[in-house]
Amino acid sequence: MDLDADLVNRVTWKIPNALALVGSRSGEEWNAMTTSWITQLSMDPVIIGVAVDNTAVTHRLISEGGSFSVNLWDATDTKVFVKFSKPARHEEGTLNGREVREEATGAPIFAEAIAWLDCELRSSTDFGTHTLFAGELVAAGIHDDDARAAAMSDTRMKYGGVPRGGHR
Amino acid sequence: MDLDADLVNRVTWKIPNALALVGSRSGEEWNAMTTSWITQLSMDPVIIGVAVDNTAVTHRLISEGGSFSVNLWDATDTKVFVKFSKPARHEEGTLNGREVREEATGAPIFAEAIAWLDCELRSSTDFGTHTLFAGELVAAGIHDDDARAAAMSDTRMKYGGVPRGGHR
Repeated sequence: MDLDADLVNRVTWKIPNALALVGSRSGEEWNAMTTSWITQLSMDPVIIGVAVDNTAVTHRLISEGGSFSVNLWDATDTKVFVKFSKPARHEEGTLNGREVREEATGAPIFAEAIAWLDCELRSSTDFGTHTLFAGELVAAGIHDDDARAAAMSDTRMKYGGVPRGGHR
Repeated sequence: MDLDADLVNRVTWKIPNALALVGSRSGEEWNAMTTSWITQLSMDPVIIGVAVDNTAVTHRLISEGGSFSVNLWDATDTKVFVKFSKPARHEEGTLNGREVREEATGAPIFAEAIAWLDCELRSSTDFGTHTLFAGELVAAGIHDDDARAAAMSDTRMKYGGVPRGGHR
């Protein structure tokens, strides 16, 4: 690509993105990761897509476990996302000390999520640095219908553009 | 799916989404459509994905033309999105009266966009009601680096969930 990398970053960072914890699990290995490339992909069936770095633990766990969850978080409580930008510590029903449980697929659902989506993997497409996991919604819940879900723009974080050291 | 449709709508509507005009073109047929299912999918190459209703004119034009554009709009000027929720009127270098031009691929770029991405189609994946078009970024520009790009939450519009009469 002969596009200027700085321009690509500035333009792609302007795309409004979600910010959520994507849960994954293979057997007794549980994880959750801060993720911003999330979108619905179909209404019937209801398919949700998350694009995940090919080198991430979450990539392996979704591939092995065949499911993922999307945990939407209160926009006023975004410090959680920094903590979950590296592999999470799993102990006694918690990830990084925050309570998780399983619902339909076994992927971790956070007790603190304002809303959650539990998805069964239907397809994986490798686009280069990241893989789009497309999952059918099989269970969902809302804990707080009044809260607004966090977006990237609620933080000083940036994600996207071209690869940067340590930021993929 | 045995999930309650109202619950699915409430949960999926909580996912923070972009709101932008996706431009498409096949020969002399030009269009642009209000779109919210947009995300980056890879950093190298830089791949942008847009999920488009299979029955939309934009679906046919992207398939035929092999390209699309994403035009980000000023968050304080969202009335444009209502107008572009049906096929646009194309005359004399304008769509619905707003100036457009071509850049690298020929897909329409709006003069008023605060930033734009011009993408060459690399793959199409039909997920049921919508198709994910994945395009490599081949040209991009920023007109206003201070403006915040519009998101769905800047409007009273909703998109997603299960199919509804007239809302797909």
